Amino acid sequence: MRTSKYFMPTLREVSSEAETISHQLMLRAGLIRKQAAGIYTYLPLGFKVLKKIENIVRQEMEKSGCVEILASAMQNSELWQESGRWSEYGAEMFRLKDRHNRDFCLGPTHEEIFTDLMRNNVNSYRQLPLTLFQIQTKYRDERRPRFGVIRSREFIMKDAYSFDLDEAGLDLSYEEMYKGYKRIFDRCSLKYQVVEADTGAIGGSSSHEFMVISEVGEDDLVFCEKCGYSANVETAISKERSFADLTEDAISGKKEKVYTPDVTTIRDVADFLKTSSEKILKAVLYTDEKGRVYMCLLPGDREVNEIKLKKLLGLKEIELATEEQIKEITGSKPGFSGPIGLKKEIFIVADSEIKSMKNFVVGANEENHHIINCNNSDFNINVYGDLKTVINADMCHNCSGNLSSSKGIEVGHIFKLGTKYSESLNAKYLDNNGKEKPMVMGCYGIGVTRTLAAIIEQNNDENGILWPLNLAPFEVAVIPVNTKNETQTKLAEEIYQTLKENRIDAILDDRNERVGVKFKDMDLIGIPLKIVIGKNAAENKVEVKFRDKDEAQIVEVSEILKIVQDYYTN
Amino acid sequence: MRTSKYFMPTLREVSSEAETISHQLMLRAGLIRKQAAGIYTYLPLGFKVLKKIENIVRQEMEKSGCVEILASAMQNSELWQESGRWSEYGAEMFRLKDRHNRDFCLGPTHEEIFTDLMRNNVNSYRQLPLTLFQIQTKYRDERRPRFGVIRSREFIMKDAYSFDLDEAGLDLSYEEMYKGYKRIFDRCSLKYQVVEADTGAIGGSSSHEFMVISEVGEDDLVFCEKCGYSANVETAISKERSFADLTEDAISGKKEKVYTPDVTTIRDVADFLKTSSEKILKAVLYTDEKGRVYMCLLPGDREVNEIKLKKLLGLKEIELATEEQIKEITGSKPGFSGPIGLKKEIFIVADSEIKSMKNFVVGANEENHHIINCNNSDFNINVYGDLKTVINADMCHNCSGNLSSSKGIEVGHIFKLGTKYSESLNAKYLDNNGKEKPMVMGCYGIGVTRTLAAIIEQNNDENGILWPLNLAPFEVAVIPVNTKNETQTKLAEEIYQTLKENRIDAILDDRNERVGVKFKDMDLIGIPLKIVIGKNAAENKVEVKFRDKDEAQIVEVSEILKIVQDYYTN
Repeated sequence: MRTSKYFMPTLREVSSEAETISHQLMLRAGLIRKQAAGIYTYLPLGFKVLKKIENIVRQEMEKSGCVEILASAMQNSELWQESGRWSEYGAEMFRLKDRHNRDFCLGPTHEEIFTDLMRNNVNSYRQLPLTLFQIQTKYRDERRPRFGVIRSREFIMKDAYSFDLDEAGLDLSYEEMYKGYKRIFDRCSLKYQVVEADTGAIGGSSSHEFMVISEVGEDDLVFCEKCGYSANVETAISKERSFADLTEDAISGKKEKVYTPDVTTIRDVADFLKTSSEKILKAVLYTDEKGRVYMCLLPGDREVNEIKLKKLLGLKEIELATEEQIKEITGSKPGFSGPIGLKKEIFIVADSEIKSMKNFVVGANEENHHIINCNNSDFNINVYGDLKTVINADMCHNCSGNLSSSKGIEVGHIFKLGTKYSESLNAKYLDNNGKEKPMVMGCYGIGVTRTLAAIIEQNNDENGILWPLNLAPFEVAVIPVNTKNETQTKLAEEIYQTLKENRIDAILDDRNERVGVKFKDMDLIGIPLKIVIGKNAAENKVEVKFRDKDEAQIVEVSEILKIVQDYYTN
Repeated sequence: MRTSKYFMPTLREVSSEAETISHQLMLRAGLIRKQAAGIYTYLPLGFKVLKKIENIVRQEMEKSGCVEILASAMQNSELWQESGRWSEYGAEMFRLKDRHNRDFCLGPTHEEIFTDLMRNNVNSYRQLPLTLFQIQTKYRDERRPRFGVIRSREFIMKDAYSFDLDEAGLDLSYEEMYKGYKRIFDRCSLKYQVVEADTGAIGGSSSHEFMVISEVGEDDLVFCEKCGYSANVETAISKERSFADLTEDAISGKKEKVYTPDVTTIRDVADFLKTSSEKILKAVLYTDEKGRVYMCLLPGDREVNEIKLKKLLGLKEIELATEEQIKEITGSKPGFSGPIGLKKEIFIVADSEIKSMKNFVVGANEENHHIINCNNSDFNINVYGDLKTVINADMCHNCSGNLSSSKGIEVGHIFKLGTKYSESLNAKYLDNNGKEKPMVMGCYGIGVTRTLAAIIEQNNDENGILWPLNLAPFEVAVIPVNTKNETQTKLAEEIYQTLKENRIDAILDDRNERVGVKFKDMDLIGIPLKIVIGKNAAENKVEVKFRDKDEAQIVEVSEILKIVQDYYTN
């Protein structure tokens, strides 16, 4: 390709809207342009890398025995009604009507479509197992699209769905995909962590996320460097602390109500009472979708993990109780709630660590008052469970190693769905005894466009993008310093042709621009290797400069092909 | 690939909804499944051929110097408001709102998007010319989706847009695309005709359609076998007839009103008056978008071409006048209209052939009456022009050869847009004198999914699809007759592996089915070559059968690779 015939509009500056490095670089290097909030056009360079990522995904999916199809983005509402998700799926689903006033959505995901396809076309155990995948455009009307294509509203996803005879089959299919995903992200040169994750709205029994480690990640990850345990903070567990050693404390003694003026946080209370936060019992009130109120208790130095709470109580939705609800239950305003002396009896759920707490402090359900020297026996607890959000001061439940945390960008997510969709959509097969059974399903997603951004997020420097060699949009940039010098342009052309003939994907920067501009552009778009044809051209010598090295070297023209080939095969 | 691990649900019968061969075969051979009216999922076999067609399109576009991008399917309304098409585009455009109540459409075409991209990223003559293309999913809410993917509502299109400095540049870009399109459809082994076409709602000065000749085509084509002239019937012109030789006719004589009872068609009138249809003046009344009424006159044996009529009168929309309007103008009911004795003066437009008509018959604007022996001098004609729909009795305007007609499926369409969009969207560049000028545009579409169906429409027999070799989903089917016979299965496996190692894309039909079922399936899905491993396996011999030949041949296993390679290279 020649730059003069190409379309790579690079920019010196970008709008302040682009907060992350990858978003800035994708705009500056001319990979994308915004069409509307969260909706982008992929320009030639962006499109080219996108296709390279797609090919990696496709090859590894095929290696995992998956078969590719292409479903429609438009989906009629009937299937979603049948699965029950037409009403469940909220504002994130783009909905539209056709000219006959029929309801459609733009698929945010394709469980219904693939399950429908299978129930209509497969009926015997002999046709299973089968994993189908597609690389296709998805639509989610994000409340807050941001970070360019990391959280966008129209995006390309690889989604796959496995259909097995039974749970054992699903385990194998899941394992195959797990391995395939690792191969994909390895080939994309990503530093990532596979974490246990919540199954959320998709449903199912087990789930793993593939998280690219990055400061701009929107997910919090917890991992143990000792044993390798890792999980999304939503589901992460830690070793239960025992508070037995805290019984001998300055405020141990008689249970009594004390005046605690001007305190608003747990920290304040602890300081006022000259004790530590974990001696204060935190009490948080929640309501469920039916308006029932729950009190959730945990050590004062930890936060409630609402996902764990919902799971423990078997609830779909919970939210913090309102000030009125708190007043009605406790008789006081928020900040002084506790399990002793409630106006109304409610369900009390406590973190397991509370079992070992002794002589602790609770809110007195009265403004500016707490009760000190309380114990579990002073009130009723309906159920104990793990309710804490793990923090990196915690110990690994597995090996007692120290837990660390980091941020991650979710690029892949795999789920064991079980029979959730095959039951609701009636996707059955006849087993070898002629008995009807539901297919056992898994689903597996990769954010292809998001992966592109994640790669840039991890591979850049002050000059621009540093592509992994297998993903660079062009392998070599051939740059004549002075396009008005015939010796240089002729030699550049010869080198360019030689590379092309040897299937090296080169770009010849034949623009009549200052060489500094050309260097900056080629570094910005991340071409791994520059061949600069300057004054030495007359002596058949050129300069070779690797994107990730400081120094350039002068070489004979005859050496170039070997240098390039060695670079790309090593 | 092994059929046991593949997904190719073939069908013996399909719904009567599938009217065309290609629709029936795409369903039967398991290439597509319907998701909703005009919305389809591409199953593995369909997807695979689709990708092969896409690759041909991509390669030839790149050969024509075009650069690939990928724009969003969702488009915000602002750009369409700016071009004026948000209100112009009717019910065919899928519209939707996002969670903030902003208007979007699902792009039926991308002129606005590409023009916007260029105005924001190109400003100098040095960056032009440029032709950008994409292979992308388009949406049109067809009033009557039909024929499977031939007229569907979600479909894949290759659309390209050229941006040039001037008209001369556009001519070159257009020519380049014209040639590229021919290469594409040639590589798809299609029998097609390139015809002059109307520019319609897209606008512009010149346009050609690439029409696949087929009985199920929705377009009528006219062509001259002598000189090669060809056009869509919408724009086709023919040699003007001269009626001078018809002056001596049985009913020549005095102009007089005659009673013509019980006649409803031109044919009836001619028969009643013992003359021929072309002696009857046909008068058709139309109204435009402002309610003005026009009378259109032409020889009785020809039909009005409304596209020509609109162009001649410079109107956007016309429709047939209502019975009330006709009554108001002529004083009579429809069927007796004529230019003599109208109640109200209206604009009268006549086909040029009327100039030479003499002593003809006109409607008397009175029920059951006509006037005979009329002449042009008896009434006023505001304008003459070519208004006829060409029929295959007509002569070529070019060489006087006989015109023929046929039906065609439009698979490609190229337009010279000129500055229509660059003016309305202000896409300007600075020329080498620093003067601002509008970019001169062309646009070029190929219906990729429709091309797939058109190929099947032209390549099939009673057993199924007959793929052109370069498009077949698999190149060879390896079929063990009896999967319980170890000699056969082992040899089949060996042959399959040998082919794979030699990059032949083979499918091993390892299903435990009767061999008749396997043959039927492989013929239905159109695999060009079958290698059948049966009783001769013990002697290392197999049967080779070409899809398009009746006889099979027995060959040594050692010969197979050469046979396959020869078949695919010749």
